[in-house]
Amino acid sequence: MIDFECDYNCGAHPLIIENLVRTNETKSRTYGFDEWSYSAKEKIKQAANNNDLEIFFLNGGTQTNATVIDSFLKGYEGVVTNDCGHINVHEAGAIEAFGHKVIALSSHNGKLNKKTLENFLDEFHNDESKDHVAQPGMVYITFPTEFGTIYSKQEIENIYSICRQNDLPLYIDGARLGYGLMSDECDFDLSWLTYHCDCFYIGGTKCGALCGEAVVFTHNNAPKGFFSNIKRHGALNAKSRLIGVQFDTLFTDNLYFDISKNAIDMAKRLKDILQQAGFKFYIFSPTNQQFVIIPNEKVKELESQVVFTHWFPFDADNFVCRFVTSWATTKEEMDELEKILL
Amino acid sequence: MIDFECDYNCGAHPLIIENLVRTNETKSRTYGFDEWSYSAKEKIKQAANNNDLEIFFLNGGTQTNATVIDSFLKGYEGVVTNDCGHINVHEAGAIEAFGHKVIALSSHNGKLNKKTLENFLDEFHNDESKDHVAQPGMVYITFPTEFGTIYSKQEIENIYSICRQNDLPLYIDGARLGYGLMSDECDFDLSWLTYHCDCFYIGGTKCGALCGEAVVFTHNNAPKGFFSNIKRHGALNAKSRLIGVQFDTLFTDNLYFDISKNAIDMAKRLKDILQQAGFKFYIFSPTNQQFVIIPNEKVKELESQVVFTHWFPFDADNFVCRFVTSWATTKEEMDELEKILL
Amino acid sequence: MIDFECDYNCGAHPLIIENLVRTNETKSRTYGFDEWSYSAKEKIKQAANNNDLEIFFLNGGTQTNATVIDSFLKGYEGVVTNDCGHINVHEAGAIEAFGHKVIALSSHNGKLNKKTLENFLDEFHNDESKDHVAQPGMVYITFPTEFGTIYSKQEIENIYSICRQNDLPLYIDGARLGYGLMSDECDFDLSWLTYHCDCFYIGGTKCGALCGEAVVFTHNNAPKGFFSNIKRHGALNAKSRLIGVQFDTLFTDNLYFDISKNAIDMAKRLKDILQQAGFKFYIFSPTNQQFVIIPNEKVKELESQVVFTHWFPFDADNFVCRFVTSWATTKEEMDELEKILL
Amino acid sequence: MIDFECDYNCGAHPLIIENLVRTNETKSRTYGFDEWSYSAKEKIKQAANNNDLEIFFLNGGTQTNATVIDSFLKGYEGVVTNDCGHINVHEAGAIEAFGHKVIALSSHNGKLNKKTLENFLDEFHNDESKDHVAQPGMVYITFPTEFGTIYSKQEIENIYSICRQNDLPLYIDGARLGYGLMSDECDFDLSWLTYHCDCFYIGGTKCGALCGEAVVFTHNNAPKGFFSNIKRHGALNAKSRLIGVQFDTLFTDNLYFDISKNAIDMAKRLKDILQQAGFKFYIFSPTNQQFVIIPNEKVKELESQVVFTHWFPFDADNFVCRFVTSWATTKEEMDELEKILL
Repeated sequence: MIDFECDYNCGAHPLIIENLVRTNETKSRTYGFDEWSYSAKEKIKQAANNNDLEIFFLNGGTQTNATVIDSFLKGYEGVVTNDCGHINVHEAGAIEAFGHKVIALSSHNGKLNKKTLENFLDEFHNDESKDHVAQPGMVYITFPTEFGTIYSKQEIENIYSICRQNDLPLYIDGARLGYGLMSDECDFDLSWLTYHCDCFYIGGTKCGALCGEAVVFTHNNAPKGFFSNIKRHGALNAKSRLIGVQFDTLFTDNLYFDISKNAIDMAKRLKDILQQAGFKFYIFSPTNQQFVIIPNEKVKELESQVVFTHWFPFDADNFVCRFVTSWATTKEEMDELEKILL
Repeated sequence: MIDFECDYNCGAHPLIIENLVRTNETKSRTYGFDEWSYSAKEKIKQAANNNDLEIFFLNGGTQTNATVIDSFLKGYEGVVTNDCGHINVHEAGAIEAFGHKVIALSSHNGKLNKKTLENFLDEFHNDESKDHVAQPGMVYITFPTEFGTIYSKQEIENIYSICRQNDLPLYIDGARLGYGLMSDECDFDLSWLTYHCDCFYIGGTKCGALCGEAVVFTHNNAPKGFFSNIKRHGALNAKSRLIGVQFDTLFTDNLYFDISKNAIDMAKRLKDILQQAGFKFYIFSPTNQQFVIIPNEKVKELESQVVFTHWFPFDADNFVCRFVTSWATTKEEMDELEKILL
Repeated sequence: MIDFECDYNCGAHPLIIENLVRTNETKSRTYGFDEWSYSAKEKIKQAANNNDLEIFFLNGGTQTNATVIDSFLKGYEGVVTNDCGHINVHEAGAIEAFGHKVIALSSHNGKLNKKTLENFLDEFHNDESKDHVAQPGMVYITFPTEFGTIYSKQEIENIYSICRQNDLPLYIDGARLGYGLMSDECDFDLSWLTYHCDCFYIGGTKCGALCGEAVVFTHNNAPKGFFSNIKRHGALNAKSRLIGVQFDTLFTDNLYFDISKNAIDMAKRLKDILQQAGFKFYIFSPTNQQFVIIPNEKVKELESQVVFTHWFPFDADNFVCRFVTSWATTKEEMDELEKILL
Repeated sequence: MIDFECDYNCGAHPLIIENLVRTNETKSRTYGFDEWSYSAKEKIKQAANNNDLEIFFLNGGTQTNATVIDSFLKGYEGVVTNDCGHINVHEAGAIEAFGHKVIALSSHNGKLNKKTLENFLDEFHNDESKDHVAQPGMVYITFPTEFGTIYSKQEIENIYSICRQNDLPLYIDGARLGYGLMSDECDFDLSWLTYHCDCFYIGGTKCGALCGEAVVFTHNNAPKGFFSNIKRHGALNAKSRLIGVQFDTLFTDNLYFDISKNAIDMAKRLKDILQQAGFKFYIFSPTNQQFVIIPNEKVKELESQVVFTHWFPFDADNFVCRFVTSWATTKEEMDELEKILL
């Protein structure tokens, strides 16, 4: 059965596996001090053309968000995001577990928008009782968003400018960063990004690795004690080589970007097929996640041949379903979907 | 200058002061084991006509909410409330400080409504990824609400019934309980309340005391270790007599209810005066907080003669202002307001 | 029955009660902005002869410790203390509740000693794996200690000097500060103290007030957001006048020091009586807590006439018992004890 | 240079790598629902000859400890351990981060001993002020301990019996479980262990895997919401296949035990060589970690040829050094050490 459920349902890119095999017998330092982690960090700096990056490798997205956010914030501060931000909806209270409120503003096309952020901060600063509420301590956005949409250069500049005016670090969750950067709609690159936020992470788990996310502090601004806080969050890998080797591979010969591009190409074909099959889209997504409105009975029928996710009911008769392509999606899978649907 | 800023801007009811003076030289046990705390608990049971109550005295509202909620919940559980619930907006992240997410649903007339709660729980239970989100572990409502509105018997029954079906304790924040129960619109009494929720608190700070809230578990259901958790929250009073004496006084000869009634009577006169002065109300409040829409220039003018709170801008030309009466508000103060406004 | 159980088993000093009565009908601002809180802060500055103090009033000791410590520390930092420090043994995990480890070093005569602290920090800095352990973020000591002992000028200077070399704030728990400062053995005064630590609190609950502790940051160094963090800890008093009036009274005409002196005078007589009765002391305490070794059968006998605390078994035949005098202990009570024991 | 620094300084066992390669292209379910995780769980049940096991795979030791402990405890409860327990010394406050105190008792031969635990619980239950301190909520021990020592059948029975009498879950940290079970001194097996504690984990990271620990609840007693709490701790692996495949391999054909045995065999030879070289041991360790007392100048000399860890100074002239063998240690490495030392 062909499977569009998510972008983390197969193993790793073959080159990663190859390198894990090749390096397996070499002894190494641990806890981030292995040779491949060092090499991977250098390659990421080169890919970003920015030498001021401080880079740490963690295991998964939720732990990365919790560790970074907790490290930027003081205890009494909260993190500002839009209400469909991953930390607000899908992380089981991992941010609150470390004592911080998630301050959720309304979303526009899946994104936090300049006006909404500005209004919130204005109201906050004009509120007589502002010392009685959770203090905004940083801003978190996702790129791409939960709905596959992406911010433009201008939109990120707007948000970052507000952040700097308010002395709030801007942190970007890049669980699917590759798919965002390789989208036809994206008007900036990795290097530009490193100059327009304070921290972001380069998602590995969803973009070709078995596990691993690369946290990037953009101007040597890792919070004091960040390493200890990684440990305290249970996020410090003893055999750091596992993630080191993977990112070293992903950032060799442009692999991360090339395989991300495959997901975008496949997503374009996916959209074509779904459109030709007569379905409407819930939202315009220029990345690898597609949200399609499908009549309930058709959902039932399709399920027997294709794996996808039931997102939420659109109305009494239709469901919003999610189809996801990835670095691993093949033309053969698209051909098969075409056969089924057209 | 007459002052309608809040219901905690003067000292305590004279009878409370009298009893603090009278008992001052007696030595007593501490940490809740003093004679007045015991006596106060008995009197509350009598007032509620319910012997299954377990009662604890804490100092203020935020600490009471944080302690009770943290005691009911497991670490990974969150508390469900409506978005204008006090714990969501005005407690500086005190719930999150103990690791719990505040799950904020939309408000209707300041209240959490049956349909909203039901829909949320249905969606939660039908969500394929429900194990990945903060688990609803209890329900919190305020009586009266932040906007002075109150739940009817039927409304509380509806919510409590959903809670029991879902095995979620219902906890009611009664910071202004007296003003709610004495409202003309209220169709139940203290005794009824003790049979229609799992826990609530009887607000003292805003209803005649210098400090103090009485937490009431309604059916001998104080969570295991509640006493230790009070201590852990920094909420255990060494000289518990201070709050014991106050509640012992408030629940002697119906004092708590009588003085609460005064605030309601004064609020009715307040509404009359404000209406006659030509102002519209932002919301219909049958309790001691009134939210009035006042033209900006009039706000400026009034400020020099009356203390009240600027709640939020209604539109470009008008402001929603809050006027509050209390157990201590006098007819003379109302006469003065009348003179100013009419 | 005469009662030496603790120093918080009666009401407040009569002058405090008098002022609560006198001010009761005046309306005031709230949350720390009342006139008496302002006045009390000025008087404390005068008493300390130091204008750089930032002062906040909280309710009780555990909440004060938890709020101050959490405000000084980053999430991953712990607080260093000696193993009989109050935060380590008697606060039900209130420090850990906010995510911080209590790093407990060994005690000497109830105190943290220079050598122990120095050794700990040396070992920490020389430990290859120091980034894997909780990071020391501040130092906490009590004055007087849990055993009634007090630090000398030299001892505090030594500790503070190590703290400054290591960039660790020094915070002193002064739950019984008055009794320490008025001890015959104390070689410094309040003013000196404000120049030899970063923060301390002046205990009210155990020194004449109904409740209340005055947190003093000694050089305008209150951590950013301290007010919000007080709120988040559930420690912000709505009717702040309650504590404001009390500290205003305590710091008028030297009252705090005079009444603390009474406890010391009575403790000296207590020691005389206990010694004459043939008991040995567990530790030499120059303050108001006395720890006496009493044969088990004598403990039983005494219990029927005197209230005191069973601290811990000394050996199979004897118990260490605590007797406490206070600002309120009278000569008549001492006479009665003498009659019983001699 | 030969390397005895730790047991996680090389890649994975070749069979694990082989299976990662073999399964790489298969699509799978995620978050623990992949086929290999299911298969691995079945094989662990078979190896333990116990069908009542509930098994979860997490990534590393600190996160496993924090997640399990936080799931067993109520907020106000602490975990009892001995003072050299890993959670007390080497996890950067990860337990406290979730609000729980680590209650550290004294160690005997690296272990928690029956008498110490009993005394602590007796004193606790007899303490008048026991409600004012962190409540013991579970017991944590390590097998093998931080010093390589192991508990006997009788010792575990003794502790477990006290735990059950006191209604405290017993949790065993098995980061190096394989090395403990395969020690010549060990008088029980995996199956026996599953009947003599409430939870333990089978360490993968240090016993042949790239990452991964298998948490085993021994009698279908996983705390309610454990899955959600894994997520909340940032410990839920999206590509759970990574750990599933590894444990599936380790528990096929007795691999986990066979490779653990190699570490023990090599450790015996290590001890021989070190003894012949004239060194004394700091402690008798029957497992793969050896703690040797080496003169300071010899330490310097050895460092240029062998990697090992400087544990702590023994006295002015000698250092305690740690040498560790593992599943991957070869005879050739031992030959080389022999050449260097003898």
